[in-house]
Amino acid sequence: MLGLVLTAEGLTVERDLPEPQPLPREVVLDIKLAGVCETDLQLARGYMGFEGIPGHEFVGIPQSGRLKGRRVAPDINCCLAEDCEYCPENRHHCPNRTVIGILGRSGGFAERVAVPEENLFEIPDRIPDEQAVFIEPLAAAFEILEQIEIPPKTPVTVLGDGRLGYLCAQVLAAAGGNVTVVGKHAGKLERFRARGLDTIVLDDLVPERKAEVVVDCTGSESGLELALKLVRPRGTIVMKTTVAGRYDLDMAQIVIDELRLVGSRCGPFPRAIEALANQEIEVESLITARFPLEQADQALETAAEKGQHKVLIIMDSNTESSSTR
Amino acid sequence: MLGLVLTAEGLTVERDLPEPQPLPREVVLDIKLAGVCETDLQLARGYMGFEGIPGHEFVGIPQSGRLKGRRVAPDINCCLAEDCEYCPENRHHCPNRTVIGILGRSGGFAERVAVPEENLFEIPDRIPDEQAVFIEPLAAAFEILEQIEIPPKTPVTVLGDGRLGYLCAQVLAAAGGNVTVVGKHAGKLERFRARGLDTIVLDDLVPERKAEVVVDCTGSESGLELALKLVRPRGTIVMKTTVAGRYDLDMAQIVIDELRLVGSRCGPFPRAIEALANQEIEVESLITARFPLEQADQALETAAEKGQHKVLIIMDSNTESSSTR
Repeated sequence: MLGLVLTAEGLTVERDLPEPQPLPREVVLDIKLAGVCETDLQLARGYMGFEGIPGHEFVGIPQSGRLKGRRVAPDINCCLAEDCEYCPENRHHCPNRTVIGILGRSGGFAERVAVPEENLFEIPDRIPDEQAVFIEPLAAAFEILEQIEIPPKTPVTVLGDGRLGYLCAQVLAAAGGNVTVVGKHAGKLERFRARGLDTIVLDDLVPERKAEVVVDCTGSESGLELALKLVRPRGTIVMKTTVAGRYDLDMAQIVIDELRLVGSRCGPFPRAIEALANQEIEVESLITARFPLEQADQALETAAEKGQHKVLIIMDSNTESSSTR
Repeated sequence: MLGLVLTAEGLTVERDLPEPQPLPREVVLDIKLAGVCETDLQLARGYMGFEGIPGHEFVGIPQSGRLKGRRVAPDINCCLAEDCEYCPENRHHCPNRTVIGILGRSGGFAERVAVPEENLFEIPDRIPDEQAVFIEPLAAAFEILEQIEIPPKTPVTVLGDGRLGYLCAQVLAAAGGNVTVVGKHAGKLERFRARGLDTIVLDDLVPERKAEVVVDCTGSESGLELALKLVRPRGTIVMKTTVAGRYDLDMAQIVIDELRLVGSRCGPFPRAIEALANQEIEVESLITARFPLEQADQALETAAEKGQHKVLIIMDSNTESSSTR
C-alpha cells in the first residue's frame, strides 16, 4: 500500500508498503484523511526515536467489526494486554501502551492502518471529515477540563497563537473562563478575535500577575518563563506542549507563591466529538493546506513553514469510494 | 534591648537595640524562646536581601491587647493595610505583606518584637514551650493537606530526613497516607522509624514510579530530579523547600505523564496547635541544642552544622518571669 515512512534517513513516500496485519482485537481501517501535528514534525527531527509510519490524527472506516463501514477516529493510546492492571481507566498512562504513529505502532499517514477495535469512536454524520480530523487534538484541549476546575469568569491566559492555542482558548472560553490569548503574530490573533476572544500581541504585553490559570501552548521553553510572570499566587500553569530540551528555571517562585504546574496531554474523545457535533468549537479555519497521500512528505515540509496551521493529507482512493462526506 | 542583628557584614548580638515601636493594630510581645529555621541560615547567606532581626518561629507573651499575658505564636505573614483586597483570606499571598523576620519586618531573635495583633494565636496550656516553638513549621507541613487530597492508604514518599521531612511525614501519615521516607542518613532515619514510618536510605533506593504523592523536603535541586523518578503518572510532587539557584530540568515527563507540581509554603496555625495539643505529632526529639539569646549568633552557627536539627534560642529574662511552662 501507499504511505509515508520515517527512518533515520528521513521521510519518504513508498508505494509497496506491506498491508497492516491486524492482531487479535484489532481491525483494519481505510483512512480517509489525516492531519499533521507538531508532534509529527518533532518525530521527523528524532523525538521519541520513532521509525515507521507516523500520523495520529485521522478519520478512517473499519473493514470489519462492530463499526464496519462507519466513520471513526481512534484514541491513540493502545494496549492489547488481557487483564491489564492499568486499562482501560488509565490507558493513557499504561506503561505497556503503544501510541499510534508515535510509539511502537504504525500511524495513519497511509492507506490503511490496524488499530485496537476498543480504541474506535464513531463520528456522527453531522461532523464533516475535515472537522473530524481535529477530534484528537480537540480532545487534548478538553483534557484541561478533566484536570482543573474553571469556575465562571476565571481569568485565563492562553500563550500561543497556533493550532493548539486556538483549540484550548475556545474550550476554556466555552467552559466559562475569561480568556485572553497572547501570541507573537497580530495576523494569527485575528482568528481568535473573530471568536470573541481577547488577544494581546506579545510585544505589547505588560506582564501582570493576574491570571488564575495560564495555559502554555507555545511549544517553546520561553512559554513557562512567561507564564510565571502572568500567573497569580496560588494560580495554575497548564503545560500543554512538550519541548525537546531542558529548562533552566528559578523554581523558588513556585514555592513562595504556591503555584501549581499541571502537565496535560491526551484527552477524552467523546467530549471532543460532542463539541464538534454541537458546533461549540470552530476548527476549519485552521486548515491552510491539503496534499494527496502521494505528497505526504511535502505535507510535512509545508506544515513546518511559518504561517501554516493545520495541513491535511487526503487519501484520495479511500475518500472517493466513501459514502460519507 | 538584647537581640541578634543581620547586616551585610554578618550576624552580631547587640545589647542596645531600640525597643520595638508598635504601629496601630500591633502589640509588643515578650519573647520566651525561638527556633532556628533553614530559612534563617539562608537569610544569613544573603537570601531575600534581609537586614535586621531575623527569627520567625517563636513563642511570646503580649504586653497588651486581648491576649495580654497569654502565650501566643504569630502567623508570620503580616498586612496592616485597611480594607486590603487580599486580606485576611489571602494574607499569605498578599502582595503588600511583610513577613516576620524575613521580609520588611523585625523578627523574634530578640527580647521583644511588635506584631499585628490579628496574627496572634493563643497556645493552650497543655503545649509546653519547647513544643510550641514548632507551631510555625508544623503549620507549614499541614499546608500540604490544604492543597491536595490524601485518600486513605495513598502511597506517599517524603524526600529528606531533616526537620521539615520529619514534620511532613508525620502529618501525611496521620492523614492516612502510606508514607515512606527517603533520606541520606541511616542515623537520622531512626527517628522516623520510631514513629512507625517506613524508611529507605538513599543509597539503597531502587527508583520505581509508584508514589502517588512525593514531597520534596530535601532543600536541594536534586530533590526534584529524584521526585520525578518516584512519582507515578498523574501523580503529584509537592515542593516544600526553596532552593537558591536555578534548576536544569527536562520538563517533558511532566507533560507526558500529566504530573502536578505544587509549591507549598506557610500553613494553618490552628491545625498545628490542635495537633500539638492532641499529641498527634512528635516534635521535641528534633531539639538538638539550646542557646541563651546572648549567644544567638552561635545558635545559628550550630544550626548549620551536620547532625543538628532544631536549635533553640532561649530568652532567659522573659522565661524566668513567665508563669507558664
